[in-house]
Amino acid sequence: MDMMTRPRRAVVVLAAGEGTRMRSARPKVLHPVAGRPMLNHVLDAVGELEPEKVVVVVGPDMHSVAEAAAPHPVVEQTERLGTAHAVEAARPALGDMADDPKAEVLVVYGDTPLVTGDTLERLSRARSDSEAGLAILGFRTGEPGHYGRLIQNEDGTVRRIVEARDATAEQLEIGLCNAGTLCARAPLLQQLLSQVGNHNASGEFQLTDVFGLATEAGETTALAEADLETVQGVNSRAELAQAEAAMQRRLRQLAMRGGASLVAPETVFLSHDTELGADVLVEPHVVFGPGVAVDDGATIRAFSHLEGAHVRPDASVGPYARLRPGTDVGEGAAIGNFVETKAVTLGEGAKANHLTYLGDAEVGAGANVGAGTITCNYDGIAKHRTQIGANAFIGSNTALVAPVSVGENAIVGAGSTITLDVDADAVAVARGKQHNRAGAASRFRAARRESERG
Amino acid sequence: MDMMTRPRRAVVVLAAGEGTRMRSARPKVLHPVAGRPMLNHVLDAVGELEPEKVVVVVGPDMHSVAEAAAPHPVVEQTERLGTAHAVEAARPALGDMADDPKAEVLVVYGDTPLVTGDTLERLSRARSDSEAGLAILGFRTGEPGHYGRLIQNEDGTVRRIVEARDATAEQLEIGLCNAGTLCARAPLLQQLLSQVGNHNASGEFQLTDVFGLATEAGETTALAEADLETVQGVNSRAELAQAEAAMQRRLRQLAMRGGASLVAPETVFLSHDTELGADVLVEPHVVFGPGVAVDDGATIRAFSHLEGAHVRPDASVGPYARLRPGTDVGEGAAIGNFVETKAVTLGEGAKANHLTYLGDAEVGAGANVGAGTITCNYDGIAKHRTQIGANAFIGSNTALVAPVSVGENAIVGAGSTITLDVDADAVAVARGKQHNRAGAASRFRAARRESERG
Amino acid sequence: MDMMTRPRRAVVVLAAGEGTRMRSARPKVLHPVAGRPMLNHVLDAVGELEPEKVVVVVGPDMHSVAEAAAPHPVVEQTERLGTAHAVEAARPALGDMADDPKAEVLVVYGDTPLVTGDTLERLSRARSDSEAGLAILGFRTGEPGHYGRLIQNEDGTVRRIVEARDATAEQLEIGLCNAGTLCARAPLLQQLLSQVGNHNASGEFQLTDVFGLATEAGETTALAEADLETVQGVNSRAELAQAEAAMQRRLRQLAMRGGASLVAPETVFLSHDTELGADVLVEPHVVFGPGVAVDDGATIRAFSHLEGAHVRPDASVGPYARLRPGTDVGEGAAIGNFVETKAVTLGEGAKANHLTYLGDAEVGAGANVGAGTITCNYDGIAKHRTQIGANAFIGSNTALVAPVSVGENAIVGAGSTITLDVDADAVAVARGKQHNRAGAASRFRAARRESERG
Repeated sequence: MDMMTRPRRAVVVLAAGEGTRMRSARPKVLHPVAGRPMLNHVLDAVGELEPEKVVVVVGPDMHSVAEAAAPHPVVEQTERLGTAHAVEAARPALGDMADDPKAEVLVVYGDTPLVTGDTLERLSRARSDSEAGLAILGFRTGEPGHYGRLIQNEDGTVRRIVEARDATAEQLEIGLCNAGTLCARAPLLQQLLSQVGNHNASGEFQLTDVFGLATEAGETTALAEADLETVQGVNSRAELAQAEAAMQRRLRQLAMRGGASLVAPETVFLSHDTELGADVLVEPHVVFGPGVAVDDGATIRAFSHLEGAHVRPDASVGPYARLRPGTDVGEGAAIGNFVETKAVTLGEGAKANHLTYLGDAEVGAGANVGAGTITCNYDGIAKHRTQIGANAFIGSNTALVAPVSVGENAIVGAGSTITLDVDADAVAVARGKQHNRAGAASRFRAARRESERG
Repeated sequence: MDMMTRPRRAVVVLAAGEGTRMRSARPKVLHPVAGRPMLNHVLDAVGELEPEKVVVVVGPDMHSVAEAAAPHPVVEQTERLGTAHAVEAARPALGDMADDPKAEVLVVYGDTPLVTGDTLERLSRARSDSEAGLAILGFRTGEPGHYGRLIQNEDGTVRRIVEARDATAEQLEIGLCNAGTLCARAPLLQQLLSQVGNHNASGEFQLTDVFGLATEAGETTALAEADLETVQGVNSRAELAQAEAAMQRRLRQLAMRGGASLVAPETVFLSHDTELGADVLVEPHVVFGPGVAVDDGATIRAFSHLEGAHVRPDASVGPYARLRPGTDVGEGAAIGNFVETKAVTLGEGAKANHLTYLGDAEVGAGANVGAGTITCNYDGIAKHRTQIGANAFIGSNTALVAPVSVGENAIVGAGSTITLDVDADAVAVARGKQHNRAGAASRFRAARRESERG
Repeated sequence: MDMMTRPRRAVVVLAAGEGTRMRSARPKVLHPVAGRPMLNHVLDAVGELEPEKVVVVVGPDMHSVAEAAAPHPVVEQTERLGTAHAVEAARPALGDMADDPKAEVLVVYGDTPLVTGDTLERLSRARSDSEAGLAILGFRTGEPGHYGRLIQNEDGTVRRIVEARDATAEQLEIGLCNAGTLCARAPLLQQLLSQVGNHNASGEFQLTDVFGLATEAGETTALAEADLETVQGVNSRAELAQAEAAMQRRLRQLAMRGGASLVAPETVFLSHDTELGADVLVEPHVVFGPGVAVDDGATIRAFSHLEGAHVRPDASVGPYARLRPGTDVGEGAAIGNFVETKAVTLGEGAKANHLTYLGDAEVGAGANVGAGTITCNYDGIAKHRTQIGANAFIGSNTALVAPVSVGENAIVGAGSTITLDVDADAVAVARGKQHNRAGAASRFRAARRESERG
């Protein structure tokens, strides 16, 4: 559609639900999917429509939802009187758009994290292309169960919605169901909302009623279809897990299409923003938290966990590597097993392969950090930095007490606790002298056994 | 049903099968599902019936099965002559109930770990409600394959069982199959068992024959239905894995209904007794061994493994944490990556975040255990305890040689091996002095290269 | 079929595809499935036919494919003019077989890693048993989509192949599709290839055309069927992941049939050559790289990763154990959590249970390696070996600076850095002396806070 003729768009996002079945102290729409609150997934999809206004309707005292919704304005639905009531609560925030016949309003649910901008765009176009006053999003399913059924006219437009509990046996056979999401000409929506009553089983003002009212008013109603997965709402932990699974399938397919090999995609968990380059190999059982980019040709081995990390080309991570935020693994560098990094930059080809903690450190190109090395970055009060120069060699089981620096090409002997800076090309050793006592082992064992008996 | 009119109940659990297809030295019914032998799952379900007697029939020399069955009595089926023979072997152990017309006997299979008390209760009631002599458990399946088919009378009662190999083409179309489990009036069961012969292809006395004999004797037979998963027997490692998967699905659903978030439930493995509170977050790839309770608001991060541990409210565990039996993680405390704990109590807010082994220790509230800390709890002869006081700070890469104590607010310097007690508020350091030799690194490398060539 | 009357067999393996949709710098057929390039899986299946010749057709500059194909000869298809052209390119390498009426040629695709020797054998026999000139491999599917449809004669022989884009609506209903793989009498194949043209939509010489040409020439064509999974080609990363999943299911079933318990088979990843004995227990989340054998009764606990390792009877590995190539875990020995081994032999009953790196080492029977022990096997120039004698006790947090040996029954004190050999039965300690400064902790904290403010 031509931008010039596109209607002005406003979107009302319903995010006031308590989510009782979640059994959670956290508002439902803030439960995360792929490392991001459901509400923000919905707002991302809404953003693709480039609407003039987005208004988020929240429940009483839902400050955390308002924060997540920022910079979009929120309106508080002070009493929970139903979805129609919630949309009406948003009216003041719509300003002049509420009454502009050239404007349309989409109503979207904050607990449908899989909805896409494309789906919403098709809904909007279904309305405007057919010059209908109202368009509704439907989905088809073989097991319509408790969903509201869409009753169509012969020309395919929607006549009305019948709730499952009110449906006849024949209507229950209908597989086309109501997804909830709708798009309406702005003044029409206001008019219909004012007519919705609460004389029904739930005692609530229900948004679904606007369809019947629109038909009664002689308005045509258009239909756009989506698949169930895309429009599915989340009302329980089990449904949250289903949404997560669907989102993961989507993210994994995208990653594979981009040229990453996921040996066992079903065991790899991505974040909404994970970036995997071409010929990246991801072994089974890997978790990507937010903020990770892996460049071409890098390998993420089994049982690795990455958050806020940049892995550069041809680097190798894991198995059992934990990269925490601020980690930058240089080209061809290697982070091995049982190694944790945080706020660390590793230069090209640097290695830290075994049982190591690197925090608040810079490791130069080609440096080798031995097994069991620990940067002691915290003294109980504050954090300090460790500098390791290019091609330095840190012997195994070494403690580097920060702030401290080890120069280029320097060598630190195994088992040392380094508290003083080490110059470039110097050798530093800090360990106790070895004493061997011949025959002492059997005497020790005998004494210990005696003492245990005593 | 009124307790007053409920029949006396006895249960015979058949646990004598060798399980040849398991290819195992272990008796089949002792293979675990969700961390508990199959037999004990069955005995739990049986227990819900509150029977007067439970008799477990075991094979020759199955002492380990007898131990698992305790305190229930076992009878040994000295020869494996078939399931009817096995039930007959239990007769002496039934005592007076065997001949009491007011008593009923259920026969349950020890290799059906997913059977529920509810299913057995429905079977019992199907019999007593219809005043039938015998009730049988059936299930429906689209692929009845080798299962025995239930031939029904017009009123829905079961006329007889036809084994798949004896069935006509028409009978093979029947999707209602025999689950094996049955419930009979006690004296009737004894009478029918005495009539079962072994003139059949297998040469065994088969329990399924009692149905045909009952019908011939003019007894009515009732039917209760269950789904296949619930009654499925385990005869191979592949079927054991299927039972495990089904049990895990059941346990995960229960956990989510209770308010725990399982990001990727299909990667989380629970034990039969795992307790997860509300708003507990379980990341992907977590294994719960037996004896774990996680309180409200705690987080179990990816790749963690817990056994015999109590995680208190708002505590954080993992990623890559291994909690072994006797671990108690205090409120708001944190166990981080590559950390193992065993017989350890951590006070409120205590932290052990990196590459640490804590065994046989007490860690006070607010204490901070640095990266790479090891409690040396074993001297080759016996185990000893380590005490760390509240708000103490243990520097990284420290060895605490037990028995040893570090007082409240004390500080241990990084890289120390602590063999003597440290008083409250004291600073303890035990490390070698650092020596830096300028320019020595290139000399060392040259010498080493020379030697390698030599 | 009698070996005497079996035709001479040659196999042409097509491996020239670029695999554009893989988005990879690596030739498609070298992408691995279960730790082995797809091409080698295919060559293994081909090898079961015991063919006289196997010729692999590669694309220009595919040296790595030629290496993987060795010792089989490769021919280079210099231009990519279609599959018929590729088979023709193999002709010179077939030598006298190309024209021998007693010889047959199978054409197999290098990107079908799940094809089995049995399937190829059935294809060959379908041809020779019916004395057909040509046999084709087909599969049935409910969703034939873009696959070529097999049009059968009334007697079940294949008349021709219709590509989906050329098919009538009626033909599109056919669920029997072309798998690509074929078997032909050798001279007939050469004759048909010479008749294939490239006047079609793709502009390529397509091998599928030989079927129509054979029918036109009055040849009968036989059919062998396989399931889709077995013959599925891999053209994208998503299809590679599907092939991996199918191969894993196959390998897991084999392992379970052999008597191994896989608690959660869907989380265990095997290599093509993994060997698991009877009563081996594999917990959830385990990865087996190439070259692993686990003997009867051993346990592989959760989150373990094994490559090139031999685990002997009743040994215990993990959780979180990483065994690297050259690891030999003795009978009843134990490798515990966060322990890495490489080129290490552990004697009977030896233990290394916590946070340890053992590289290039020999650990005697009954020895106990304490938590946090590191073998410092690399000095920056070369690797050195560590010897630990039988029943030796290595205290926790010890660094063993190789080359070094610790004798039988010797004891090394916790926190030591051992640079000198320790005799049998000696006690070695190498650590700094402990200094406790009373009241110094609060002074230190005050000073540090002051400095942070400053």
